[in-house]
Amino acid sequence: MKYPSGIKKIKSISNISYKNRGMTLESELNQTNEYYRSINKAYIYKKPTPIKITKVDYPSRDKAVIKEAFFTVPSTTDYNGIYKGKYIDFEAKETKNKTSFPLANIHSHQIEHIKNIYNHNGIVFLIIRFTIINETYLLLGKDFIDFINNNSRKSIPLDFFKKKAYLLKENYNPRIDYLKIIDLVIGGK
Amino acid sequence: MKYPSGIKKIKSISNISYKNRGMTLESELNQTNEYYRSINKAYIYKKPTPIKITKVDYPSRDKAVIKEAFFTVPSTTDYNGIYKGKYIDFEAKETKNKTSFPLANIHSHQIEHIKNIYNHNGIVFLIIRFTIINETYLLLGKDFIDFINNNSRKSIPLDFFKKKAYLLKENYNPRIDYLKIIDLVIGGK
Repeated sequence: MKYPSGIKKIKSISNISYKNRGMTLESELNQTNEYYRSINKAYIYKKPTPIKITKVDYPSRDKAVIKEAFFTVPSTTDYNGIYKGKYIDFEAKETKNKTSFPLANIHSHQIEHIKNIYNHNGIVFLIIRFTIINETYLLLGKDFIDFINNNSRKSIPLDFFKKKAYLLKENYNPRIDYLKIIDLVIGGK
Repeated sequence: MKYPSGIKKIKSISNISYKNRGMTLESELNQTNEYYRSINKAYIYKKPTPIKITKVDYPSRDKAVIKEAFFTVPSTTDYNGIYKGKYIDFEAKETKNKTSFPLANIHSHQIEHIKNIYNHNGIVFLIIRFTIINETYLLLGKDFIDFINNNSRKSIPLDFFKKKAYLLKENYNPRIDYLKIIDLVIGGK
Protein backbone atom coordinates (compact mmCIF):
# COMPACT_ATOMS: atom_id res chain seq x y z
CA MET A 1 0.00 0.00 0.00
CA LYS A 2 1.27 3.45 -0.90
CA TYR A 3 0.29 6.58 0.99
CA PRO A 4 0.43 10.10 -0.44
CA SER A 5 3.54 11.75 0.97
CA GLY A 6 1.45 14.01 3.22
CA ILE A 7 -0.07 11.17 5.17
CA LYS A 8 3.25 9.50 5.61
CA LYS A 9 4.68 12.66 7.04
CA ILE A 10 1.85 12.99 9.54
CA LYS A 11 2.34 9.38 10.53
CA SER A 12 5.98 9.88 11.26
CA ILE A 13 5.34 13.04 13.25
CA SER A 14 2.82 11.19 15.34
CA ASN A 15 5.40 8.47 15.90
CA ILE A 16 7.92 11.01 17.11
CA SER A 17 5.51 12.65 19.47
CA TYR A 18 4.53 9.24 20.81
CA LYS A 19 8.18 8.45 21.45
CA ASN A 20 8.65 11.71 23.27
CA ARG A 21 5.59 11.24 25.38
CA GLY A 22 5.84 7.56 26.04
CA MET A 23 8.02 5.99 28.69
CA THR A 24 7.96 2.24 28.92
CA LEU A 25 5.22 0.80 31.09
CA GLU A 26 7.90 -0.56 33.41
CA SER A 27 9.51 2.81 34.07
CA GLU A 28 6.11 4.44 34.55
CA LEU A 29 5.17 1.81 37.11
CA ASN A 30 8.51 2.15 38.87
CA GLN A 31 7.95 5.89 39.07
CA THR A 32 4.42 5.33 40.35
CA ASN A 33 5.58 2.90 43.03
CA GLU A 34 8.30 5.31 44.08
CA TYR A 35 5.65 8.00 44.45
CA TYR A 36 3.43 5.71 46.54
CA ARG A 37 6.39 4.98 48.81
CA SER A 38 7.28 8.65 49.08
CA ILE A 39 3.81 9.48 50.42
CA ASN A 40 3.79 6.35 52.61
CA LYS A 41 0.76 4.94 50.80
CA ALA A 42 2.01 1.52 49.71
CA TYR A 43 5.25 -0.42 49.50
CA ILE A 44 5.27 -2.16 46.17
CA TYR A 45 8.45 -3.10 44.29
CA LYS A 46 9.40 -4.71 41.03
CA LYS A 47 11.25 -7.93 41.63
CA PRO A 48 14.71 -8.20 40.12
CA THR A 49 14.94 -10.08 36.82
CA PRO A 50 15.49 -13.75 37.61
CA ILE A 51 18.80 -15.04 36.29
CA LYS A 52 21.04 -18.04 36.75
CA ILE A 53 24.62 -16.98 37.36
CA THR A 54 27.20 -19.40 35.97
CA LYS A 55 30.47 -17.45 36.14
CA VAL A 56 31.70 -14.76 38.53
CA ASP A 57 35.08 -13.02 38.48
CA TYR A 58 36.71 -11.25 41.42
CA PRO A 59 39.06 -8.63 39.94
CA SER A 60 39.64 -7.28 43.45
CA ARG A 61 38.77 -8.44 46.93
CA ASP A 62 35.49 -6.59 47.33
CA LYS A 63 34.32 -6.52 43.75
CA ALA A 64 32.52 -9.26 41.96
CA VAL A 65 31.75 -9.15 38.26
CA ILE A 66 29.25 -11.58 36.79
CA LYS A 67 30.83 -12.85 33.58
CA GLU A 68 28.16 -15.29 32.49
CA ALA A 69 24.51 -15.57 33.40
CA PHE A 70 21.25 -16.56 31.75
CA PHE A 71 17.71 -15.23 32.00
CA THR A 72 15.40 -17.76 33.63
CA VAL A 73 11.64 -18.17 33.56
CA PRO A 74 9.97 -16.27 36.42
CA SER A 75 7.82 -18.34 38.77
CA THR A 76 5.88 -15.36 40.08
CA THR A 77 4.64 -12.04 38.80
CA ASP A 78 7.00 -9.06 38.60
CA TYR A 79 5.51 -6.69 41.17
CA ASN A 80 4.41 -7.26 44.73
CA GLY A 81 4.14 -5.58 48.07
CA ILE A 82 1.82 -4.30 50.77
CA TYR A 83 -1.18 -1.96 50.56
CA LYS A 84 -3.45 -1.28 53.55
CA GLY A 85 -1.92 -4.30 55.28
CA LYS A 86 -2.94 -6.56 52.42
CA TYR A 87 -0.75 -8.47 50.02
CA ILE A 88 -0.81 -6.96 46.52
CA ASP A 89 0.63 -8.59 43.43
CA PHE A 90 0.58 -7.88 39.71
CA GLU A 91 2.14 -8.50 36.35
CA ALA A 92 2.65 -5.76 33.75
CA LYS A 93 3.02 -6.32 30.03
CA GLU A 94 3.14 -4.31 26.86
CA THR A 95 1.90 -5.64 23.55
CA LYS A 96 2.23 -4.23 20.04
CA ASN A 97 -0.81 -6.21 19.06
CA LYS A 98 -3.78 -3.91 18.26
CA THR A 99 -6.72 -6.20 18.77
CA SER A 100 -5.78 -8.71 21.45
CA PHE A 101 -3.28 -9.60 24.17
CA PRO A 102 -1.41 -12.84 23.35
CA LEU A 103 -1.42 -15.15 26.37
CA ALA A 104 2.05 -16.40 25.37
CA ASN A 105 3.24 -13.25 27.19
CA ILE A 106 2.29 -14.77 30.55
CA HIS A 107 4.16 -17.93 31.56
CA SER A 108 2.14 -20.87 32.85
CA HIS A 109 3.88 -20.56 36.23
CA GLN A 110 2.68 -17.00 36.46
CA ILE A 111 -0.90 -18.00 35.67
CA GLU A 112 -0.74 -20.58 38.46
CA HIS A 113 0.71 -17.93 40.75
CA ILE A 114 -2.11 -15.50 39.95
CA LYS A 115 -4.68 -18.22 40.75
CA ASN A 116 -2.95 -19.03 44.04
CA ILE A 117 -2.81 -15.40 45.15
CA TYR A 118 -6.45 -14.91 44.22
CA ASN A 119 -7.47 -18.01 46.17
CA HIS A 120 -5.54 -16.75 49.20
CA ASN A 121 -7.38 -13.41 49.14
CA GLY A 122 -4.50 -11.34 47.85
CA ILE A 123 -5.12 -8.34 45.62
CA VAL A 124 -3.95 -9.58 42.24
CA PHE A 125 -4.26 -8.16 38.73
CA LEU A 126 -2.60 -7.52 35.39
CA ILE A 127 -1.68 -4.19 33.86
CA ILE A 128 -1.66 -4.52 30.07
CA ARG A 129 -0.66 -1.77 27.69
CA PHE A 130 -1.58 -1.84 24.03
CA THR A 131 1.28 0.36 22.87
CA ILE A 132 0.07 1.11 19.34
CA ILE A 133 -3.35 2.39 20.41
CA ASN A 134 -1.81 3.70 23.64
CA GLU A 135 -4.38 2.22 26.00
CA THR A 136 -3.46 0.71 29.37
CA TYR A 137 -5.84 -1.57 31.25
CA LEU A 138 -6.01 -3.01 34.72
CA LEU A 139 -7.56 -6.48 34.55
CA LEU A 140 -8.44 -8.07 37.88
CA GLY A 141 -7.03 -11.53 38.59
CA LYS A 142 -10.58 -12.84 39.00
CA ASP A 143 -11.58 -11.74 35.49
CA PHE A 144 -8.32 -12.99 34.04
CA ILE A 145 -8.85 -16.45 35.59
CA ASP A 146 -12.49 -16.44 34.42
CA PHE A 147 -11.31 -15.79 30.89
CA ILE A 148 -8.70 -18.57 31.02
CA ASN A 149 -11.19 -21.05 32.49
CA ASN A 150 -13.89 -20.31 29.94
CA ASN A 151 -11.85 -19.93 26.77
CA SER A 152 -9.42 -22.01 24.80
CA ARG A 153 -8.22 -18.88 22.97
CA LYS A 154 -4.56 -18.06 22.85
CA SER A 155 -5.15 -14.35 23.33
CA ILE A 156 -7.53 -12.02 25.17
CA PRO A 157 -9.42 -9.77 22.76
CA LEU A 158 -9.21 -6.01 23.27
CA ASP A 159 -13.00 -6.07 23.54
CA PHE A 160 -12.76 -8.18 26.67
CA PHE A 161 -10.54 -5.50 28.22
CA LYS A 162 -12.98 -2.78 27.14
CA LYS A 163 -15.79 -4.69 28.81
CA LYS A 164 -14.17 -6.13 31.93
CA ALA A 165 -11.00 -4.17 32.67
CA TYR A 166 -10.36 -0.62 33.90
CA LEU A 167 -8.74 1.96 31.62
CA LEU A 168 -5.76 3.59 33.32
CA LYS A 169 -5.11 7.20 32.43
CA GLU A 170 -1.60 8.65 32.54
CA ASN A 171 -1.07 11.56 34.89
CA TYR A 172 1.86 13.57 36.01
CA ASN A 173 2.26 12.13 39.49
CA PRO A 174 1.56 9.34 40.15
CA ARG A 175 2.12 8.43 36.55
CA ILE A 176 -0.36 5.53 36.54
CA ASP A 177 -2.60 5.71 39.60
CA TYR A 178 -3.61 2.05 39.68
CA LEU A 179 -4.35 2.04 43.42
CA LYS A 180 -7.31 4.34 42.71
CA ILE A 181 -8.88 1.44 40.85
CA ILE A 182 -7.94 -0.98 43.62
CA ASP A 183 -9.64 1.34 46.12
CA LEU A 184 -12.83 1.22 44.06
CA VAL A 185 -12.71 -2.54 43.84
CA ILE A 186 -11.76 -3.46 47.42
CA GLY A 187 -13.50 -0.40 48.79
CA GLY A 188 -16.08 -2.36 50.74
CA LYS A 189 -13.59 -4.76 52.32
CA MET B 1 48.65 -21.03 68.28
CA LYS B 2 49.45 -24.70 67.79
CA TYR B 3 47.06 -27.47 68.70
CA PRO B 4 48.09 -31.03 69.50
CA SER B 5 47.27 -33.10 66.43
CA GLY B 6 44.44 -34.88 68.27
CA ILE B 7 42.40 -31.73 68.78
CA LYS B 8 42.90 -30.70 65.21
CA LYS B 9 41.59 -34.04 64.07
CA ILE B 10 38.46 -33.75 66.19
CA LYS B 11 37.92 -30.27 64.88
CA SER B 12 38.05 -31.42 61.32
CA ILE B 13 35.67 -34.31 61.98
CA SER B 14 33.23 -31.95 63.54
CA ASN B 15 33.54 -29.74 60.48
CA ILE B 16 32.74 -32.64 58.22
CA SER B 17 29.73 -33.73 60.20
CA TYR B 18 28.48 -30.14 60.24
CA LYS B 19 28.84 -29.99 56.48
CA ASN B 20 26.89 -33.19 56.10
CA ARG B 21 24.14 -32.10 58.38
CA GLY B 22 23.93 -28.50 57.46
CA MET B 23 22.40 -27.05 54.34
CA THR B 24 22.67 -23.32 53.95
CA LEU B 25 19.91 -21.34 55.58
CA GLU B 26 18.86 -20.16 52.13
CA SER B 27 18.34 -23.64 50.73
CA GLU B 28 16.50 -24.74 53.87
CA LEU B 29 14.17 -21.77 53.58
CA ASN B 30 13.62 -22.39 49.89
CA GLN B 31 12.73 -25.98 50.68
CA THR B 32 10.42 -24.83 53.47
CA ASN B 33 8.65 -22.33 51.20
CA GLU B 34 8.27 -24.99 48.52
CA TYR B 35 6.67 -27.24 51.12
CA TYR B 36 4.28 -24.48 52.23
CA ARG B 37 3.28 -23.95 48.59
CA SER B 38 2.83 -27.67 48.00
CA ILE B 39 0.29 -27.90 50.84
CA ASN B 40 -1.33 -24.60 49.77
CA LYS B 41 -0.50 -22.95 53.12
CA ALA B 42 1.41 -19.86 52.01
CA TYR B 43 2.98 -18.40 48.89
CA ILE B 44 6.33 -17.02 49.89
CA TYR B 45 9.29 -16.68 47.52
CA LYS B 46 12.87 -15.55 47.65
CA LYS B 47 13.39 -12.57 45.41
CA PRO B 48 16.01 -12.94 42.69
CA THR B 49 19.42 -11.43 43.47
CA PRO B 50 19.37 -7.81 42.32
CA ILE B 51 21.91 -7.13 39.59
CA LYS B 52 22.66 -4.45 37.07
CA ILE B 53 23.16 -5.93 33.62
CA THR B 54 25.67 -4.03 31.47
CA LYS B 55 26.35 -6.39 28.56
CA VAL B 56 24.18 -8.99 26.83
CA ASP B 57 25.12 -11.18 23.86
CA TYR B 58 22.70 -12.86 21.48
CA PRO B 59 24.50 -15.92 20.09
CA SER B 60 21.25 -17.00 18.44
CA ARG B 61 17.88 -15.42 17.87
CA ASP B 62 16.14 -16.71 20.97
CA LYS B 63 19.06 -16.97 23.34
CA ALA B 64 20.50 -14.18 25.39
CA VAL B 65 23.67 -14.54 27.43
CA ILE B 66 24.53 -11.95 30.03
CA LYS B 67 28.22 -11.22 29.58
CA GLU B 68 28.67 -8.55 32.21
CA ALA B 69 26.62 -7.68 35.27
CA PHE B 70 27.18 -6.41 38.79
CA PHE B 71 25.57 -7.19 42.11
CA THR B 72 23.60 -4.23 43.44
CA VAL B 73 22.43 -3.31 46.93
CA PRO B 74 18.94 -4.67 47.66
CA SER B 75 16.30 -2.11 48.63
CA THR B 76 14.01 -4.66 50.24
CA THR B 77 14.31 -7.90 52.18
CA ASP B 78 14.90 -11.15 50.32
CA TYR B 79 11.67 -13.05 51.02
CA ASN B 80 8.07 -12.00 50.70
CA GLY B 81 4.63 -13.30 49.94
CA ILE B 82 1.17 -13.98 51.26
CA TYR B 83 0.00 -15.90 54.33
CA LYS B 84 -3.62 -15.97 55.44
CA GLY B 85 -4.31 -13.05 53.13
CA LYS B 86 -1.69 -10.94 54.88
CA TYR B 87 1.55 -9.60 53.53
CA ILE B 88 4.57 -11.42 54.96
CA ASP B 89 8.16 -10.30 54.57
CA PHE B 90 11.50 -11.34 56.02
CA GLU B 91 15.25 -11.27 55.70
CA ALA B 92 17.47 -14.28 56.41
CA LYS B 93 21.13 -14.13 57.34
CA GLU B 94 23.84 -16.44 58.54
CA THR B 95 26.68 -15.27 60.74
CA LYS B 96 29.85 -17.04 61.81
CA ASN B 97 29.99 -14.78 64.83
CA LYS B 98 29.41 -16.72 68.07
CA THR B 99 28.24 -14.00 70.42
CA SER B 100 26.41 -11.39 68.35
CA PHE B 101 24.86 -10.61 64.98
CA PRO B 102 26.71 -7.76 63.23
CA LEU B 103 24.22 -5.18 61.93
CA ALA B 104 26.50 -4.52 58.95
CA ASN B 105 24.80 -7.60 57.49
CA ILE B 106 21.55 -5.66 57.04
CA HIS B 107 21.67 -2.70 54.63
CA SER B 108 20.20 0.59 55.79
CA HIS B 109 17.61 0.38 52.98
CA GLN B 110 16.51 -2.94 54.36
CA ILE B 111 16.15 -1.55 57.87
CA GLU B 112 13.96 1.25 56.47
CA HIS B 113 11.97 -1.35 54.57
CA ILE B 114 11.40 -3.44 57.71
CA LYS B 115 10.15 -0.33 59.54
CA ASN B 116 7.80 0.54 56.68
CA ILE B 117 6.33 -2.95 56.51
CA TYR B 118 5.87 -3.02 60.26
CA ASN B 119 4.14 0.37 60.23
CA HIS B 120 1.81 -0.85 57.48
CA ASN B 121 0.79 -3.91 59.53
CA GLY B 122 2.68 -6.46 57.50
CA ILE B 123 4.12 -9.55 59.16
CA VAL B 124 7.84 -8.80 59.17
CA PHE B 125 10.80 -10.49 60.83
CA LEU B 126 14.39 -11.68 60.54
CA ILE B 127 15.66 -15.24 60.54
CA ILE B 128 19.24 -15.26 61.84
CA ARG B 129 21.41 -18.35 62.01
CA PHE B 130 24.50 -18.51 64.18
CA THR B 131 26.26 -21.17 62.13
CA ILE B 132 29.04 -22.07 64.59
CA ILE B 133 26.69 -22.77 67.51
CA ASN B 134 24.04 -23.96 65.03
CA GLU B 135 21.16 -21.93 66.43
CA THR B 136 18.56 -20.25 64.25
CA TYR B 137 16.30 -17.51 65.58
CA LEU B 138 13.21 -15.72 64.37
CA LEU B 139 13.32 -12.11 65.54
CA LEU B 140 10.14 -10.11 65.02
CA GLY B 141 10.45 -6.82 63.14
CA LYS B 142 9.02 -5.01 66.16
CA ASP B 143 11.79 -6.28 68.46
CA PHE B 144 14.43 -5.63 65.82
CA ILE B 145 13.27 -2.01 65.45
CA ASP B 146 13.11 -1.62 69.24
CA PHE B 147 16.72 -2.76 69.46
CA ILE B 148 17.88 -0.37 66.73
CA ASN B 149 16.00 2.55 68.29
CA ASN B 150 17.34 1.94 71.77
CA ASN B 151 20.94 0.99 71.05
CA SER B 152 23.88 2.52 69.30
CA ARG B 153 25.57 -0.90 69.13
CA LYS B 154 26.82 -2.22 65.83
CA SER B 155 25.65 -5.75 66.58
CA ILE B 156 22.81 -7.54 68.34
CA PRO B 157 24.10 -9.75 71.17
CA LEU B 158 23.16 -13.42 71.14
CA ASP B 159 21.62 -12.82 74.58
CA PHE B 160 19.10 -10.46 73.02
CA PHE B 161 18.06 -13.27 70.67
CA LYS B 162 17.85 -15.72 73.57
CA LYS B 163 15.58 -13.30 75.42
CA LYS B 164 13.42 -11.82 72.64
CA ALA B 165 13.58 -14.11 69.62
CA TYR B 166 12.17 -17.57 68.93
CA LEU B 167 14.48 -20.53 68.47
CA LEU B 168 13.70 -22.38 65.25
CA LYS B 169 14.26 -26.12 65.29
CA GLU B 170 15.15 -28.02 62.15
CA ASN B 171 12.76 -30.74 61.08
CA TYR B 172 12.43 -33.01 58.15
CA ASN B 173 9.54 -31.31 56.42
CA PRO B 174 9.07 -28.40 56.56
CA ARG B 175 12.73 -27.93 57.24
CA ILE B 176 12.28 -24.73 59.28
CA ASP B 177 8.66 -24.32 60.28
CA TYR B 178 8.75 -20.57 60.84
CA LEU B 179 5.02 -20.10 60.19
CA LYS B 180 4.34 -22.03 63.40
CA ILE B 181 5.93 -19.14 65.29
CA ILE B 182 4.00 -16.62 63.19
CA ASP B 183 0.78 -18.43 64.10
CA LEU B 184 1.62 -18.07 67.79
CA VAL B 185 2.39 -14.40 67.39
CA ILE B 186 -0.49 -13.27 65.15
CA GLY B 187 -2.77 -15.97 66.55
CA GLY B 188 -5.24 -13.51 68.03
CA LYS B 189 -5.50 -11.33 64.93
